[in-house]
Formats: sequence, structure tokens, C-alpha cells
Amino acid sequence: MERIDDLNFNGLKIIQSNEVFSFSIDAVLLAHFGYVPKKGKIIDLCAGNGAVGLLCTEKTKASIDFIELQPRLAEMAEQSIALNKKEAQCHVHCADLKELSQYFAHDTIDAILCNPPYFPVREQQLQNPNPHLAIARHEIYAEIEDIMQQASYVLKTKGHLSLVHRPDRFLPILEAMQRHQITPKKVRFIYSKMDRPAKAMIIEGIKNGSKEGFIVEPPFIIQNENNEYTKEMMDIFHGK
Amino acid sequence: MERIDDLNFNGLKIIQSNEVFSFSIDAVLLAHFGYVPKKGKIIDLCAGNGAVGLLCTEKTKASIDFIELQPRLAEMAEQSIALNKKEAQCHVHCADLKELSQYFAHDTIDAILCNPPYFPVREQQLQNPNPHLAIARHEIYAEIEDIMQQASYVLKTKGHLSLVHRPDRFLPILEAMQRHQITPKKVRFIYSKMDRPAKAMIIEGIKNGSKEGFIVEPPFIIQNENNEYTKEMMDIFHGK
Repeated sequence: MERIDDLNFNGLKIIQSNEVFSFSIDAVLLAHFGYVPKKGKIIDLCAGNGAVGLLCTEKTKASIDFIELQPRLAEMAEQSIALNKKEAQCHVHCADLKELSQYFAHDTIDAILCNPPYFPVREQQLQNPNPHLAIARHEIYAEIEDIMQQASYVLKTKGHLSLVHRPDRFLPILEAMQRHQITPKKVRFIYSKMDRPAKAMIIEGIKNGSKEGFIVEPPFIIQNENNEYTKEMMDIFHGK
Repeated sequence: MERIDDLNFNGLKIIQSNEVFSFSIDAVLLAHFGYVPKKGKIIDLCAGNGAVGLLCTEKTKASIDFIELQPRLAEMAEQSIALNKKEAQCHVHCADLKELSQYFAHDTIDAILCNPPYFPVREQQLQNPNPHLAIARHEIYAEIEDIMQQASYVLKTKGHLSLVHRPDRFLPILEAMQRHQITPKKVRFIYSKMDRPAKAMIIEGIKNGSKEGFIVEPPFIIQNENNEYTKEMMDIFHGK
């Protein structure tokens, strides 16, 4: 069953479905911490049901293009945009991220926010070691490589890419960014609790950015030792 | 004036001098969080007055070789070792890190801990932009490159390098490690306070280690919002 959930940001609403897809805390944190210019052109890449782009509408006058491969999710994003009366600002494209350069011209986009799938295929491969590990690896490589290649093509010089992903993919992501002239500038690690390894990270890179001054932003902790959301997390949920 | 300070770990003492060198919190954190095998051979590289290696004596039966370029610091390290009656376990070499491969055979060392100088030359260059920036950059490059090259030569396969450094050098350090077959495996970021960017990091790499499974360890916070040391910091100062 689909349902309408309140995004809690000035009354934004979003269509969700537990069977298909619900937006995650990662999406909320990407919209909060990712780079969102006040105006210009933004792409929400791997948009899912559109939570990241919709949350960004509260912070910017920029046009926002949503790219989502799965037709049903793209349709949910479209419905949510209509529900929030954001049709003038937001446009959904049901497309493969590999086709980004067919939808957008070279050197035209100010910012891309991307919350890609975290490759569940690979998790299975790790649980059932080999024989297909090489294939899974190649898929992962291809996915990150495709994102960086396409992003680099459409981003303006000094345009920003903000990507949320898992810390175990940190090194190949840094390498892929740099192969495609997106200089890593910042990273913020997200910890489920203060005493656990990071479970997610938001990396920000700048197309043709200078190589000086990489910053590791303050840690973001989701829950306290009593399994309650931290004040910082609640503030973000409440759109503060 | 030189003075004898208590390292607070089971009565360890160390000779300090504000004019020349005092060990830093970074050294204490490197000794605490860095990889220290129970036995075998350890090198404290860029040993300063010997705090890192001396703190390690509390955790291991391994032999510990201290490498320090500056004669006066090397002498202070030697005196501190004598003061703590650790002459059987600890040996000081007043030497350039570039000569490491002349002191130790290839493939013989189990772990290296390294707290290198953080290139104050470069800070000056940043304050007075150019004309010597290229030179400063080259010096930085050379220093990190030398550490990785020498470490890779003397480390055993699966031997560990633990390095404390500044987060703005994260990317070139990762690259230099990988150029010299030291696979980055873990990093822990050190924050002076919870809401500030990281001020230091401890990176751990393994010689010829597998490329899977990079871990971002829980954040370490030095002070709370009232400018007091956190419980975690006090526990480490007290050798817990």
C-alpha cells in the first residue's frame, strides 16, 4: 500500500510505499548536509521517490531535475511533486543515470545530489564467498564510475557533487571522483551511535576544484546511548 | 629547562622541554589507538622525545626502536628510557627516516607508529602566498612519500603502519600509502570538540593488505562544550 507521509519540513508531503521504497535517514541527511545552491540547476540523481529533491525545495529557488531508473518510483516522485505543488520547480525523468549526458548539456549543472543504491548484490556475494565476486566487484566499480563520469560531464566548473554512501566504499569513491576531475573537498561521517564505526558518509566534491584543504566535518550521531534520536537528528527531522 | 613529566601510565616518566619539544595529545592518542602487536619488532618513527614508544612499552613485549633526526631529542628519548629502566626493550637511533632501510632489513618489522612533524614550513607558505609554495608542496610530498617508501620496505607482509596526521593531508597520504603497497584499512578522526571539523586523524594501513573493508572508527572527542577533557580523554591520560 502506498501512503502519504509528512516530511516535517514546512508541511512537505511524500508518497511512500514499504513494498517498493521508503526514503531513508541517509536521504534526509544528504538534503540537509549536501551542497544546495540558492539558484541555478540541481539534479537529484538516483532520486527514488524524490525525498532529497523535495527537501531541497525548501532551501533553494534552483530548478531541480529528478533522475530515477524505476518507473514506479519515478511516478511516486512525480505524484509527490504535484501533491506539494512544486511542478514549476521540479521535473522527473525516468532514466538510467548513464544517460545523464543525453538529458543535460555539458557544463550546465550547479549541483548534483546523489543517494545511490548501496549495491545489495555485493552483500550477498560477501555472505556467499565467490564465485561471482569478480562480477559483483565490477558492477560496483561500474556504478561509482558511471556516476562520476556522468556527473563530471554535466557539472559546471566549480559545480558541486554531494554523494551519500557507505564508508567501506570511501577509497574507490575518492579515486573515481579524482579520475573524473571532481576534487574531494569535504566529508562528514554519520554514526548510528557515538561508539560505533561510521555507517554512512556524505562526500562533497567540486568539479576542477583546488586540491588544497580537504575537511573532515564534525561527526553526526543519530542516536544516543538510550537508543533515542539525538537533538541534532530531531532538529533535522523537524526542519530546523 | 628540561623537566621530568609523569606520563600517568603506571608511573612512566618522560623528559620534556618546552623550548625544544613536548609530547602532544596526538602522541598519546597514537600510542593508544595505533596498532601495537604483543611481541615482535616495533619502530617509533619520528620519535621526538620518545613518548609514543615509551607508552607502548606498557602494552607489549616487542622490541621498540626509536628513530629521531634531532640529536637533542634523541638524547632526551634515551634518558627517558633509562629513567624508566626500559633499556632492554627500547633502542634509540639518531637518524633520518630516509635511512630506515639502512638500519632495518627488508620485511622484518611488525608495526610502525609514526607521529611526523606537520610541516610548519607549509603553514608559513599558506600565510604568505607563494612564491615558494611549489617548494613547500614538494617538501610535503617528499616527507609523506619517504615515510611510506621506507615503511613499506621494512614492514613484513601484513605488518601495520599507524600514522597520526592532519585531515587536510588525508588524500595525499592515502595515495602515498597505496603507491607503496600499504593498504589503508582504518581511520579514526580526532575532534577537539564535537561541533568542530576534525583536527587530527590516525590512519592504519597494512602492508599488502586486502582492499576490502575500510573502516571509519568511532569519532574521538577531546573536550566537551565546557572546555573540559571528555571522560574518554581522561581515561586515556590515566592509562585506562
